Amino acid sequence: MKTPSSLEDLIGALRCLPGVGPKSAQRMAYHLLQRDRQGALHLSHSLRHAVESVKHCSKCNNFSEEDICPLCSSARRETDQLCVVEMPADLLMMEQAQCFRGMYFVLMGRLSPLDGLGARELPLDRLVKRARELACEVILATNFTVEGEATAHYIATLLRSQGIRVSRIARGLPVGGELEHVDSGTLAQAVFERRAITE
Amino acid sequence: MKTPSSLEDLIGALRCLPGVGPKSAQRMAYHLLQRDRQGALHLSHSLRHAVESVKHCSKCNNFSEEDICPLCSSARRETDQLCVVEMPADLLMMEQAQCFRGMYFVLMGRLSPLDGLGARELPLDRLVKRARELACEVILATNFTVEGEATAHYIATLLRSQGIRVSRIARGLPVGGELEHVDSGTLAQAVFERRAITE
Repeated sequence: MKTPSSLEDLIGALRCLPGVGPKSAQRMAYHLLQRDRQGALHLSHSLRHAVESVKHCSKCNNFSEEDICPLCSSARRETDQLCVVEMPADLLMMEQAQCFRGMYFVLMGRLSPLDGLGARELPLDRLVKRARELACEVILATNFTVEGEATAHYIATLLRSQGIRVSRIARGLPVGGELEHVDSGTLAQAVFERRAITE
Repeated sequence: MKTPSSLEDLIGALRCLPGVGPKSAQRMAYHLLQRDRQGALHLSHSLRHAVESVKHCSKCNNFSEEDICPLCSSARRETDQLCVVEMPADLLMMEQAQCFRGMYFVLMGRLSPLDGLGARELPLDRLVKRARELACEVILATNFTVEGEATAHYIATLLRSQGIRVSRIARGLPVGGELEHVDSGTLAQAVFERRAITE
């Protein structure tokens, strides 16, 4: 008894998706062939179309279908601040918060030695070039994970050595947060990074 | 700030995969475009190829690229037993166990009212036809879940009303199982379905 080769091949191909092992891949392939062939064809087309259309913005490195993305080419953005984020989803969150009107740079990753991602795998040359071009303050908005912190530290050292002003978004209690329910690490940082009240 | 439309479309299309919500779909799309464009193209091709090539065997209803699958057309299989399983993966397990040399019928599902799968969604007409054609014993090897049990019960009633002999695979302790570590439901069934020792 053999599984048809095209089904075998599909199960193998589905494993390129992150977090999908052999059992999930099999379940997905069965589901698509049994219940959603239309969806499978749509997915096939979308994959090809996205691979062919999506490239990186030459300024902010975000995914874009144009050489320069709409945000970077917008005349309504301020150019005195450059915000560095790890992933496009982080940029979307920043935009949703409506707290920032400057430019962005998307790293498309973070320093992560365990995943084989070192400084060479991040587009740091282009970040430095962009920061010098704008001659502005760089705001590091990488995550407050171990990897995000290491990335921020590395980039800060790199940029400061070039005479570029660097800042880091603040750590502390979330808005609406209660001391009773916050973790002790966050509380300790909030005390350590307390701000003077000057009126 | 807008996500490129082809990327947006890919994120939407990935949600046809079972168990993939908006966050996972986004993560998958980013991963493919950022780290594995080759894999994405391969997946695109495999999806289309599988949808075009894979159909159902007209005898056993398993996935097959031919009208009658290699197992059903094999001269080396016995035709006095027909084993009913839920999914192709179950058939593979049966074959690996090398305990059965007869024919199969794959339901491609189970009775599952919560998922909108009733008796009408299962190919029961074809199962009855196939069982009458072979005029053989039907062995029900659906899972011992609530849904699998309900399916077995329904099919047994249906086939017996047509004068077809029906049996169910045995429940009990697994080989190598210890009473101390087995769940009480399984142990109770093993006692209830005990076999006389005749020698």
